[in-house]
Amino acid sequence: MTDTSPVLKNDRFLRALLRQPVDVTPVWMMRQAGRYLPEYRATRGEAGDFMALCKNAELACEVTLQPLRRYALDAAILFSDILTIPDAMGLGLYFEAGEGPRFRKTVRTEADIAALPIPESERDLDYVMKAVKTIRRALGGSVPLIGFSGSPWTLATYMVEGGSSRDFHNIKRMIYDTPELAHALLDKIALSVIDYLNAQIRAGAQVVQIFDTWGGVLPGHAYREFSLAYMQKIVAGLIRENEGRRVPVILFTKGGGQWLADIADTGCDAVGLDWTTDIGQARAQIGGRVALQGNMDPSMLFANPARIRSEVALILESFGPGEGHVFNLGHGIDQKVDPAHAGVFIDAVHELSAKYHQG
Amino acid sequence: MTDTSPVLKNDRFLRALLRQPVDVTPVWMMRQAGRYLPEYRATRGEAGDFMALCKNAELACEVTLQPLRRYALDAAILFSDILTIPDAMGLGLYFEAGEGPRFRKTVRTEADIAALPIPESERDLDYVMKAVKTIRRALGGSVPLIGFSGSPWTLATYMVEGGSSRDFHNIKRMIYDTPELAHALLDKIALSVIDYLNAQIRAGAQVVQIFDTWGGVLPGHAYREFSLAYMQKIVAGLIRENEGRRVPVILFTKGGGQWLADIADTGCDAVGLDWTTDIGQARAQIGGRVALQGNMDPSMLFANPARIRSEVALILESFGPGEGHVFNLGHGIDQKVDPAHAGVFIDAVHELSAKYHQG
Repeated sequence: MTDTSPVLKNDRFLRALLRQPVDVTPVWMMRQAGRYLPEYRATRGEAGDFMALCKNAELACEVTLQPLRRYALDAAILFSDILTIPDAMGLGLYFEAGEGPRFRKTVRTEADIAALPIPESERDLDYVMKAVKTIRRALGGSVPLIGFSGSPWTLATYMVEGGSSRDFHNIKRMIYDTPELAHALLDKIALSVIDYLNAQIRAGAQVVQIFDTWGGVLPGHAYREFSLAYMQKIVAGLIRENEGRRVPVILFTKGGGQWLADIADTGCDAVGLDWTTDIGQARAQIGGRVALQGNMDPSMLFANPARIRSEVALILESFGPGEGHVFNLGHGIDQKVDPAHAGVFIDAVHELSAKYHQG
Repeated sequence: MTDTSPVLKNDRFLRALLRQPVDVTPVWMMRQAGRYLPEYRATRGEAGDFMALCKNAELACEVTLQPLRRYALDAAILFSDILTIPDAMGLGLYFEAGEGPRFRKTVRTEADIAALPIPESERDLDYVMKAVKTIRRALGGSVPLIGFSGSPWTLATYMVEGGSSRDFHNIKRMIYDTPELAHALLDKIALSVIDYLNAQIRAGAQVVQIFDTWGGVLPGHAYREFSLAYMQKIVAGLIRENEGRRVPVILFTKGGGQWLADIADTGCDAVGLDWTTDIGQARAQIGGRVALQGNMDPSMLFANPARIRSEVALILESFGPGEGHVFNLGHGIDQKVDPAHAGVFIDAVHELSAKYHQG
């Protein structure tokens, strides 16, 4: 780490994740560096394709910073993809227009799983660590930098299906019919994620988030066995303090609103909520143990500015006075959103939340 | 109604929906008349396309009965589509291979909504009523017949988007930006559904289910305002007794596991659960007021027979002893399922549930 600015100028986000007092509720947006911004589309055009952008530290840094130049965001998030680990395992990640991510190889048999290497992140994913270091330097201590990974279950769905899926038949057949294979695969992925996130933390990530995009497609018992148990293992294996500060861990399971108490039990610092969960009820249930992140419907950004503001007010009121809330969307911002509406959202969070932090 | 067999030979399903004692837990499968059955594919080939099959009472009756010939199912369900109402409103329903349902016209503006007729079901959807009568006659009192409709919210998503959607941007923009338009549309659809389901009941449907396939994509407050309120209006408008028996109403919101108490409050007789909800917890929450229907993961049918049986046992044990459970999958059966596995599932429910009904 060669951070030239050891003092963090805006630490609202870190404080809120640890349920410490803040002046206003911090806010960032999942996928804030993305296609809704014309400057992102220009840089991506310059890079060539999506993975070329991820693998170029200077350009990845540039797109990470773009939304921070437009908006008063309280955190930056590493620009990368959740599928870098399976790519480093040799599965051959590529993107087809309109089709989402694909892998050249799938993982279905005992032999497939045995053959998978556990990547050594500082060597095999050095482009990610270079991006983290470059971004930290460029941020100059303005706001904290979030590192991230997909969850083992979520990565396994792509590895077994060979890409995106609507019905997850192959991975579900694996967990139901040959659970021992699924566990062997998930265990390898979990070890890889631990190494990957710790490398990001050593490179300068000040918070890490695990994206469990597909945990919500499972029955509760299977969620606990095949997704949550491996996130818990990761939480237990992470560096939790660096540069003299705690490194908070956020777990986000889309569709996980029925399992919040189980998620909070993992030892994470914060739980991400999608937009279907009532944040006031979630706080009543687990707010004494963890911070909450979320959770406006991303589609609300298609509404008019007054409606966006009223929804922000509703969510702030639902959470109520006191600490432990990081505002966010309940999922990534959509590429068709007007960038001005994102600005309305972010400003509304800061402006309307001040009154909840006067204790 | 010209039912030639006034005595229902197997009324387990009706009894369980009213939380009355049964010998074994009744079971049926959403989409039980469907493409996983070779005899269905043959009849569909004979009919031409999907809507031609729905509109031919004899063939619709044939495919409704096909799964009952193979399996000891405790209910039949009308073979039809959830989009018959918008089709009767003049939107021009058609199906593109691999693309799902599409409409030739979309409904987006105040003028579009004002122009929509409320179909008079006995005239405009007489092919559905003919199918109901034909099936009731053919069933000869063996098991009860379920009629159904899509929920107003679910129908509105297709009408506004023009077909299936992944992100529901247009309908969400409507509810967030111009809620008065959305309410005008939903109100028209709700009135149409009331008329449609009452016509099905008069034609011989002994139970009705409302499929709210897309309620789960909403935040809780929007679910209550734009989906649940209209299902409640329908429940209030239905014929609840016919042929001297109560006509139970089942509400099924996929992804509605966080709102079970609200759903039970509508006055429905039973709540359908998708596979993500723990049925034991659901029973503890609302089982004193309503019956529960569900909820095995449909993908479990890809596992081996022993695993299917163990999952059935797990769900029965989770619900526990006593009345008020109708077994089902948590969503429709997939077309790639081996028909023999469906048989294992149905037999397992009857065989393994007897011990829970000895009170």
